[in-house]
Amino acid sequence: MKKIALTLLLAAIGFAAGMAQANQDVYYARRATHFQTLPVGKSDIIMLGNSLTDGAEWNELLGNRHVKNRGIIGDIVQGLYERMEPILKGQPKKIFILSGVNDVSHGVDGDSIGRAMEKLITLIQTRSPRTKIYLQSMLPFNNDVREWKYLVGRDQVVVDGNRALEAVARRRGVTWINLYPLFVDDNGHLRAELTNDGLHLVGEGYLIWRDAIKPYAK
Amino acid sequence: MKKIALTLLLAAIGFAAGMAQANQDVYYARRATHFQTLPVGKSDIIMLGNSLTDGAEWNELLGNRHVKNRGIIGDIVQGLYERMEPILKGQPKKIFILSGVNDVSHGVDGDSIGRAMEKLITLIQTRSPRTKIYLQSMLPFNNDVREWKYLVGRDQVVVDGNRALEAVARRRGVTWINLYPLFVDDNGHLRAELTNDGLHLVGEGYLIWRDAIKPYAK
Repeated sequence: MKKIALTLLLAAIGFAAGMAQANQDVYYARRATHFQTLPVGKSDIIMLGNSLTDGAEWNELLGNRHVKNRGIIGDIVQGLYERMEPILKGQPKKIFILSGVNDVSHGVDGDSIGRAMEKLITLIQTRSPRTKIYLQSMLPFNNDVREWKYLVGRDQVVVDGNRALEAVARRRGVTWINLYPLFVDDNGHLRAELTNDGLHLVGEGYLIWRDAIKPYAK
Repeated sequence: MKKIALTLLLAAIGFAAGMAQANQDVYYARRATHFQTLPVGKSDIIMLGNSLTDGAEWNELLGNRHVKNRGIIGDIVQGLYERMEPILKGQPKKIFILSGVNDVSHGVDGDSIGRAMEKLITLIQTRSPRTKIYLQSMLPFNNDVREWKYLVGRDQVVVDGNRALEAVARRRGVTWINLYPLFVDDNGHLRAELTNDGLHLVGEGYLIWRDAIKPYAK
């Protein structure tokens, strides 16, 4: 009896996770079609990434009408690679990239994140050689605020991944922006006052990020 | 035994729904803090609403840097009312409102949606009398594409609600923009080619909406 109850409970959790994933997948597909209809031009500054990028009004934060949000909730580095076409054909002036934490939650290690990012940056440099690239570090997360099941115990993967990303930036000659130290507390977690779920940023967090990249986003 | 299994299955569905709601609630709270940090000014055009508004890059669609997205996934008319302060203190030039379908999914009837909207519009007119208000109709949904449990059988509530909203627009002297006919098919559902989940719009859908409001968004 207990065994059946446990099986059903695990099925319930699986069902909930499956529903969340299905919702995320339709959101992803939909937002990608939106980006296909929006032109990109040579003066544009592209904010490319996952939910952290998606969640902000970047043109307002940076006070620049050429800034365009190309973030999608749940994206991974390979996902960015696969949806670059509508961006690259516009030959934008600049691209800011922040990605990797969803890769971490999928069990990918730091070096693999670095390799995926190098592939993405090489694509951009090949297809749009005049685009200036800014590679931003991953932010820490905080599982004390709310537990992200697939991130438990993986704080160090973010640190390792950032080391790999910084090496990629150096190798590919792109600007490295290390956001991590601005967001981390003494325990290696995302500063609790900058999040309401341990992973995403509240308004104050975006102002810190904005201040860090503003000198580059002109 | 079957009874226990059924009970646990229902618990599983409840758990999944609860998790989805919890995710939506933290998203809502977080995005509201973002809006509190973003100033609004007298030249601004505010896009106010729920996930339909949230999901688009309005400044790009409308080619106007004064256009600001103030949509939040899951919002209801009363939710808009409660988060108007950071918008109203900027005395914006224009506000476009689209809301109501989440009220419908909460079991609210068309007249009640109209009353909530009249309260919201009266607040804007009182606190920011020079702001020009554009009230947009609710869009149809399509439960054949994907079933939205809380919308089943409620297509008519959207129609009734739109009638109530149009009356509010007339009474309060604001511009009524009837988007519904642009999005509805012969069966009274959201045109299947404009959505990937029966409720939200793919890129093509946003272009139709953009074309409908562009003459007003200057």
